[in-house]
Amino acid sequence: MGPHPAVAAIRLAVRRVLHDVITEFQRNAGHDRPAEAARRPAHAVGSPYTEAGASGGSLTALPERPDTPLVLVACSGGADSMALASALAFEARKLDVRAGGITVDHNLQPGSGLRAAEVVTRLTAMDLDPVEAVAVHVGREGGPEAAARDARYAALDAAAERHGAAAVLLGHTRDDQAETVLLGLARGSGIRSLSGMAAASGPAGRYRRPFLQLDRQTARKACLVQSIPVWDDPHNIDPAYTRSRLRHEGLPALEKALGKGVVEALARTAQLSRDDADALDTWAAEAELSVRDETGRLECAGLYALPPAVRRRVLRRALIEAGAPAGSLFARHLEEVDRLITGWRGQRAINLPGRVEALRQGGRLVIRQS
Amino acid sequence: MGPHPAVAAIRLAVRRVLHDVITEFQRNAGHDRPAEAARRPAHAVGSPYTEAGASGGSLTALPERPDTPLVLVACSGGADSMALASALAFEARKLDVRAGGITVDHNLQPGSGLRAAEVVTRLTAMDLDPVEAVAVHVGREGGPEAAARDARYAALDAAAERHGAAAVLLGHTRDDQAETVLLGLARGSGIRSLSGMAAASGPAGRYRRPFLQLDRQTARKACLVQSIPVWDDPHNIDPAYTRSRLRHEGLPALEKALGKGVVEALARTAQLSRDDADALDTWAAEAELSVRDETGRLECAGLYALPPAVRRRVLRRALIEAGAPAGSLFARHLEEVDRLITGWRGQRAINLPGRVEALRQGGRLVIRQS
Repeated sequence: MGPHPAVAAIRLAVRRVLHDVITEFQRNAGHDRPAEAARRPAHAVGSPYTEAGASGGSLTALPERPDTPLVLVACSGGADSMALASALAFEARKLDVRAGGITVDHNLQPGSGLRAAEVVTRLTAMDLDPVEAVAVHVGREGGPEAAARDARYAALDAAAERHGAAAVLLGHTRDDQAETVLLGLARGSGIRSLSGMAAASGPAGRYRRPFLQLDRQTARKACLVQSIPVWDDPHNIDPAYTRSRLRHEGLPALEKALGKGVVEALARTAQLSRDDADALDTWAAEAELSVRDETGRLECAGLYALPPAVRRRVLRRALIEAGAPAGSLFARHLEEVDRLITGWRGQRAINLPGRVEALRQGGRLVIRQS
Repeated sequence: MGPHPAVAAIRLAVRRVLHDVITEFQRNAGHDRPAEAARRPAHAVGSPYTEAGASGGSLTALPERPDTPLVLVACSGGADSMALASALAFEARKLDVRAGGITVDHNLQPGSGLRAAEVVTRLTAMDLDPVEAVAVHVGREGGPEAAARDARYAALDAAAERHGAAAVLLGHTRDDQAETVLLGLARGSGIRSLSGMAAASGPAGRYRRPFLQLDRQTARKACLVQSIPVWDDPHNIDPAYTRSRLRHEGLPALEKALGKGVVEALARTAQLSRDDADALDTWAAEAELSVRDETGRLECAGLYALPPAVRRRVLRRALIEAGAPAGSLFARHLEEVDRLITGWRGQRAINLPGRVEALRQGGRLVIRQS
């Protein structure tokens, strides 16, 4: 008798990602020319591997490049990431890959250190190695959720470097993706913010999300039938958090109004939007070259001839290149600059975030920092 | 003392659209070359104007082309369209435009004929001319909302032709737009379905939506302060209708979770998505030409080199051109055809809606109807 369908599903999802990681690892190993090495992140060559070996329990010198890639799972102790850890442990035994785990202690709740130690115990019992708990300090910048996320990724990045990991698996599910799309929708800043989380992201595509097409219920079920105890983060049901309100009130109400397929539709929207945004970014990068004159200034006539969606992106690129912070550029800024092209009636220079100004001069758009 | 801010807002919105309509009308009148005339809808030349004159109360022969454009308001008697009618009546008096109104009796509720007659009385009292009630029969195709919409637009199209109207104003507000975006999101079929309603749509851009940037509350307030009685369609609060559930449960829950700016963000998403979808459609149309060989077949190598978002659109265009009904082509169909290009391992011919099949043959993609 095969495993429970939920367990089979999580294992298949992890197996697919591990195949990709192994293939890429072997490709990199086979083409070790300097140009390739330079494109790989620093940890992929040289000493960090020695440290990875050390934390694995051995102090003997390792070969400079191990034979098998190390894959870490980022594990909070919740159902999604515990299911992910269990599938990684199972699949890694059959494949040419080493499996380890990291849990981040955010120090935000009493007893969080104890819980992190518990997660370490459970991951170790799954034969993951190395396993590590990393304590972080969560700042305040950008709100509690953004600050926790920033601290978490910084810790995971450092751990990946330290251990020379080829990949870090994250337990985000299709439900998380749907929530992320709705959060992006609430910003109203276009299709890039609707594209949710990528299946692979971070330095050299380090972060992988095997469960992005799997629902949360499957992960939870997989833990249940494997008798894996899971921890329910009280933040996940705290209505002080936007994502928690979305999960427990917003999304269920939307499902009630629109039908049960909403989560799947949102996840599909993410993928389609991501592809669309990528294509338009490519077009804008090419268009930007074509509308610059010999001195590098943007020609208004060339900009005018572009489709509005491409022109907006060219303008946004130019403003960011001139020093405007991407996060402070809003739709209204771009609209105002766009009117220098499409609604020219002698406007004055436009002041933009980052002390950047945009003005029209002799048929050229001048964008500069003061 | 000027008008109440809500009244000023609805009038400004209508004035802007009327200016556009007048400008286009005059441009068409000034360039009456055959090529231009052919591009204009049939009603813009010839006899229908006589009928428009007749319904205006005069039976004398009119000049073949009137001096001022006729603008109709489509009015249900609800707050949005009554506000729109009042603003049209007010602005038309000051501008070079004739204003009329149409109300559609859907025959779905007892007393709907009486209500239509009431709307005619009110529009006539606003000095609109011509004013007409049109009774329609609502079928069942595509569900109750789609069937009512189809019947309504068919009636409005016919009325516009009959009266030789240059434009038909519709009372859709920013709230309607937000609901439309969410309905599109639930389909999960990409950014075109997120682009909501256009400010101008239909044959020759006949339908105009002056209130698309205005919230429903403003329209309602404008009726209140002008003492305009409004009718509340019981369908709008009937939970049997998806849009009604969205309006009264889904969207409020989303606002509670994400904050009050959700409606505005959704409306902005619509505009940005529309521009993006237009640009990508343009790209796909050009790309399609570049990947066809001398016999008109699609070259797989050329398709492979396109960004996924563009390739999907080229494939979709080709499938529709071959006879696949657009409404029956889903993401999974496109993905399967796409794998003939990106994941070729000798697959068999793929059967698609409309008896269309796609297969790969000698480096070419063959798409044909059986």
